[in-house]
Amino acid sequence: MEFDQKSDLHLRETAVECSEVFRGRLLDVRLDHVRLPSGAVSTREYIKHQGAVVIIPVLDNGELIFERQFRYPVGEVFIEFPAGKIDPGESIEETGKRELLEETGFVASSWRYLGVLHPCVGYSNERIEVFLARGLIRQGEQKLDHGEHLDVFSMSLSDAVEAVRSGAITDAKTISAIFWAEKVLMSHW
Amino acid sequence: MEFDQKSDLHLRETAVECSEVFRGRLLDVRLDHVRLPSGAVSTREYIKHQGAVVIIPVLDNGELIFERQFRYPVGEVFIEFPAGKIDPGESIEETGKRELLEETGFVASSWRYLGVLHPCVGYSNERIEVFLARGLIRQGEQKLDHGEHLDVFSMSLSDAVEAVRSGAITDAKTISAIFWAEKVLMSHW
Repeated sequence: MEFDQKSDLHLRETAVECSEVFRGRLLDVRLDHVRLPSGAVSTREYIKHQGAVVIIPVLDNGELIFERQFRYPVGEVFIEFPAGKIDPGESIEETGKRELLEETGFVASSWRYLGVLHPCVGYSNERIEVFLARGLIRQGEQKLDHGEHLDVFSMSLSDAVEAVRSGAITDAKTISAIFWAEKVLMSHW
Repeated sequence: MEFDQKSDLHLRETAVECSEVFRGRLLDVRLDHVRLPSGAVSTREYIKHQGAVVIIPVLDNGELIFERQFRYPVGEVFIEFPAGKIDPGESIEETGKRELLEETGFVASSWRYLGVLHPCVGYSNERIEVFLARGLIRQGEQKLDHGEHLDVFSMSLSDAVEAVRSGAITDAKTISAIFWAEKVLMSHW
């Protein structure tokens, strides 16, 4: 399972020319000309993203905190773990603490870093850093961003796994994080 | 875990005005004005995507087929399950069969639909349909799209799970699909 970096040379693409083709309030869209391993030149279009953090909040009774949020691009309400984008100058730990408090009103005394997810490698450079948060205490009310509306609720790990099976949970970062939660909580990862 | 659709009204956003702000070879970027649950108007920027299929190919010896592919947006080689976009007019089963053959040279006699993933609900409407493929026979060589370069290899389920733990696998659709594979192959989902 170890790969020699040198063995990747036949796969690597290198930038020839880079341009920004759309810059909105949320999205930064790039169009780069790249040299393929074959030597030919092609184009790559992608979103330049500042990165995000997702939190698996584990209550003392073992239940996990989730959110229900309407996601306009898909047009559906999704069940997700709390998550949010990294603000400029912020460490990923700070983002995790800020987003957990803003979205759920909880603070956590124990933070464990689990790893990183890439949600959309085909057209975004987004990284999502995954934390498990324990020792949760309700500190106050939600302080949502302008235009953000979401419900907070909790369920057991086994209900969350069943919700993946049934299709009630389809958000890939949340499915990946439930998988991680199950490994940490049940298999001592 | 059942939610009343009517109870979603306080979360839903509705389109006021829609526009296309960038149309490339790959990306279709939209900017919509939307009415929030509060009544205020805001904007939503997102990728309009045709949908994709990911395949979990299980060899007769129990190993799973993976790919190593350079992903330009992130600038790294990723370990992923075979996957690809749905062509116009194609059923998801047809996409699965076509992509498995094109990317790996294998055909499968047994296809089981497991469900759908949403990789990027914040800024893309992409759906990824998940199939488990068994009864694999090598039919020929890779027939890759122009500009596509990838390596094919296989590993055991336990090595794949360990690769998630170690951080060697970070692609969220692949982590989600490994989770599903483990449930199907070990827990009889």
